[in-house]
Amino acid sequence: MVTCVKYTSAMLLLRRCHSLTRFGPFNTQRHQVTPAVFVSGAAAVRMGVLRAHGPRWRHGLAGLLAGTGAVLAYGLHHHKAEQQDSSTVQTIEKTSAFPIISQEEVTTHRSLEHGVWVTYKGGVYDITEFVAMHPGGDKILLAAGGALEPFWALYAVHNQEHVLEMLSEYKVGELSAEDVKKQKAIKTSDPYSTDPERHPALHINSLKPFNAEPPPELLSDSFITPSAIFFKRNHLPVPQVDEASYQLHIEGLPGGVLTLSLEELKTRFPKHTITATLQCAGNRRSEMNMVKQVKGLNWGIAAISNATWGGRGSGTCCWPLWAFHVQFEGLDKDVTGTTYGASIPLNKAVNEEGDVLLAYEMNGQDIPPDHGYPVRAVVPGTVGARNVKWLGKIIVSAEESSSHWQQNDYKGFSPGTDWDTVDFKSAPAIQELPIQSAITVPTDGAVVDRSSEEVTVKGYAWSGGGREVVRVDVSLDGGKTWQVAQMRSSEKGQAPGPSPPPGRAWAWKLWEVTAPLPAEAQELEIVCKAVDNSYNMQPDTVPPIWNLRGVLSNAWHRVKVEIREDDNEE
Amino acid sequence: MVTCVKYTSAMLLLRRCHSLTRFGPFNTQRHQVTPAVFVSGAAAVRMGVLRAHGPRWRHGLAGLLAGTGAVLAYGLHHHKAEQQDSSTVQTIEKTSAFPIISQEEVTTHRSLEHGVWVTYKGGVYDITEFVAMHPGGDKILLAAGGALEPFWALYAVHNQEHVLEMLSEYKVGELSAEDVKKQKAIKTSDPYSTDPERHPALHINSLKPFNAEPPPELLSDSFITPSAIFFKRNHLPVPQVDEASYQLHIEGLPGGVLTLSLEELKTRFPKHTITATLQCAGNRRSEMNMVKQVKGLNWGIAAISNATWGGRGSGTCCWPLWAFHVQFEGLDKDVTGTTYGASIPLNKAVNEEGDVLLAYEMNGQDIPPDHGYPVRAVVPGTVGARNVKWLGKIIVSAEESSSHWQQNDYKGFSPGTDWDTVDFKSAPAIQELPIQSAITVPTDGAVVDRSSEEVTVKGYAWSGGGREVVRVDVSLDGGKTWQVAQMRSSEKGQAPGPSPPPGRAWAWKLWEVTAPLPAEAQELEIVCKAVDNSYNMQPDTVPPIWNLRGVLSNAWHRVKVEIREDDNEE
Repeated sequence: MVTCVKYTSAMLLLRRCHSLTRFGPFNTQRHQVTPAVFVSGAAAVRMGVLRAHGPRWRHGLAGLLAGTGAVLAYGLHHHKAEQQDSSTVQTIEKTSAFPIISQEEVTTHRSLEHGVWVTYKGGVYDITEFVAMHPGGDKILLAAGGALEPFWALYAVHNQEHVLEMLSEYKVGELSAEDVKKQKAIKTSDPYSTDPERHPALHINSLKPFNAEPPPELLSDSFITPSAIFFKRNHLPVPQVDEASYQLHIEGLPGGVLTLSLEELKTRFPKHTITATLQCAGNRRSEMNMVKQVKGLNWGIAAISNATWGGRGSGTCCWPLWAFHVQFEGLDKDVTGTTYGASIPLNKAVNEEGDVLLAYEMNGQDIPPDHGYPVRAVVPGTVGARNVKWLGKIIVSAEESSSHWQQNDYKGFSPGTDWDTVDFKSAPAIQELPIQSAITVPTDGAVVDRSSEEVTVKGYAWSGGGREVVRVDVSLDGGKTWQVAQMRSSEKGQAPGPSPPPGRAWAWKLWEVTAPLPAEAQELEIVCKAVDNSYNMQPDTVPPIWNLRGVLSNAWHRVKVEIREDDNEE
Repeated sequence: MVTCVKYTSAMLLLRRCHSLTRFGPFNTQRHQVTPAVFVSGAAAVRMGVLRAHGPRWRHGLAGLLAGTGAVLAYGLHHHKAEQQDSSTVQTIEKTSAFPIISQEEVTTHRSLEHGVWVTYKGGVYDITEFVAMHPGGDKILLAAGGALEPFWALYAVHNQEHVLEMLSEYKVGELSAEDVKKQKAIKTSDPYSTDPERHPALHINSLKPFNAEPPPELLSDSFITPSAIFFKRNHLPVPQVDEASYQLHIEGLPGGVLTLSLEELKTRFPKHTITATLQCAGNRRSEMNMVKQVKGLNWGIAAISNATWGGRGSGTCCWPLWAFHVQFEGLDKDVTGTTYGASIPLNKAVNEEGDVLLAYEMNGQDIPPDHGYPVRAVVPGTVGARNVKWLGKIIVSAEESSSHWQQNDYKGFSPGTDWDTVDFKSAPAIQELPIQSAITVPTDGAVVDRSSEEVTVKGYAWSGGGREVVRVDVSLDGGKTWQVAQMRSSEKGQAPGPSPPPGRAWAWKLWEVTAPLPAEAQELEIVCKAVDNSYNMQPDTVPPIWNLRGVLSNAWHRVKVEIREDDNEE
């Protein structure tokens, strides 16, 4: 039954509509149902018509059930993940007169042809029609004929009221008491129980998998981000890797599979060190959410950080002529054994000027568990998603990675493209990122006293592809007039290092400007925009770059600050 | 005397102010004078105050006298160069009682220390204070102590009323009749008399040097732009090069100077062929002029074209370790013998994937005179200015080219930077260009009949640095809603070639979209914006990217079209 706490009348209407269209518990030709959150009382009256136009609602439906890697941020208030242990989540209906179905019967429905059934907490659900809408693609079929619990334990984001509401719409029966007992006997352990402890300063966007960003004002305090507050972006549980038995397998080279121990990786090749900024494709997604709901973690401006990485350069091997891509596979895996994966173009990997590292050090120490211990790929200038952590395998290949994250995620689309029309094959996998900058100080809504007479604005700026940031413009009046910020590429008070060679500017720049408070202004709209040495600029506004996955959010960053008049002078 | 036909009252006021501050004809400590075009009647009353703030007016002054390479486009109506043969230009004042000065006396004033005097058509001018404002820098000193005519013959843009008006302000005397006679005996020949004939379809922005662009609707007709209408951007007269005696000198290599004849260049190295788009840094400058006056040719949207180039690859040589730049010198030179010059980073030149060519063919034929016959540099993905034509010398160097065009031109600045505050050293020379697109059909102001029911929009899209254009978004409603255009990378009806390898997409894409006319609209604001595979986007609007040289104009392109209702239906 579709329900929504805030829309009781809509709920009742939907309940009626629902009963009108239900043909029976075993009917596998189910109809799509409008999510209640999209339905006003009046609109719900037209439900019969709307039902005939299922695709119109796919966006809404798909937004409620997130798939592998496509983690849901439903509603603007979910800035911090609302964690609910799965044992405390209750399904809505407990007493409805659904037929009793055996696990044996459920098991026969594990394909689109025979219907796709799943169980959850004693309920049986026919999700056949939802498969096509699942953002994670047909990976959802892995749960077919069985229980959802082990999958949802992996992707804790499913444990939300909205998701359960949607699921309830697909209910077709109750699992037999005997089978429920059997299921409970199979204890579902929490795969995240071995995740490391994290720094309390982090703003958590999702706990399982763990995704968190540092407070902006901390971010711009250090040119090199301390590892503890370096933004964390995990797709799966942190794998437990034993240093002694760790092996890195490299496939696709002329001599067959090459296997290296950690010791060999560290001692057989010279160590290279680079300072490189990593940024999540979804950094600043929250600004897109303010325009129109997108799918993905509701990142603020701090899904970006800068570190010094040490490891073996990847540009020293010989590579076969037929190869065009280098695929990376992580050791982090889901319940089906599928590992995280991504690939980069071969010419980035083999070009010594590409500075790709098989890194085992971060900021002078072993790479911490959250950042890929013991070895990760560092692909400077390239979106975080290709910097594969807990690296288990490298495959030199004629093809891109076939992983979900390479093929059906981390791509950009036109603002006019929605989940009904999107063709993931039509867009290239994000590699190099565009020019980016943001204001870390002051934060939006801050108050500045008139008596301070001036305001100091701080932030970061970075561009992908090794393009150096050459200028940051700052405006206090919403973009009408601009001044040029001072930039630095070292810790405060330290001399900057030598300029990077052309095309190898991997590290961000921090910037700062102090300006007098405009005499007449009561509020400042502070804006920043950066320009790189290809003279690419940030777009002015968010709506024209809005995209359904909320990636590549790099419009001018805007912060409003109130000027409080000095009481003594009034 | 500052005068302006349109501001007679201002002229009279200025004349008064001028007499108040003139200390004598031989006073080398001259004051800057506000150009009349900036002065309203009321404002001119404050002239005494304004005079004390010389720098405030430098922008205006500098805008009136263009230097080497910084060709002036004063006023929006100067879309086509208003050519005046120098013999017909008259100085304003003929009968004033200035002292008679000998050429010998003039000759003693050829430095900032002793004053900088020049003669022009029998007048003597003390331009000491103007030297610092000359956009071409101290190159103006080359004329010190002598006649301006030979320089102005080279840069015909000086032959404009405004320039003469400004010059007259600096008048300090009349050249003796005897010396005038001697000067006339030295015939100043027109260095442009041997320039080639050009295609009549070209829109001419400046005749001497020749700068012209094709009509937009022709531009998008062909994937490969025919050489005859390929945009022309000359800084100097087209040099006459004898094929038999042509030599290319390459300096800075370990073995000393290498000299190659055209025959050797063509036969001793394999010929490489690439299709690459070239774009002038000033393409679409006219849109910046509409925001606020900039300096430079008033290019429309067609200072960009695409050709197939054949020649020797530059990536096959050996290069010394100390080198970081490759300088190119043209055979085109000014009266002082200074040649056009520019440089590119060494890693672009030596990387085989950089595809830099020493090109001797354009579209399958010898390179035409206007495009660099017999040999030019083709530096794909890089601003036109570095694709040096009539290539005479290559210098492998630790330093960038010291030329005006590398150091003090072709750089981008903040909108808040003006000619008083600009520090050319603070910005990098433009190399790779940012993402660009424009609408070629329909043109601004076109009329579409309602009965046609739909509108077809065409254009081009390209990005620098070998970044492939992956999408063009088109809006008919000023940017509120967007659709994705169809792109092609071959002539219409022909199969596209293979996709370029990553980072080597040198050619533009042409795009097209046909959409129904919105039922209620009376006017369409058609907008396009492109995105490259680094997901860089074009900025929304022009003012925030405005810069004093009017380069890098790549905001969304906007075209307004009127829908004419069908009379029969009214």
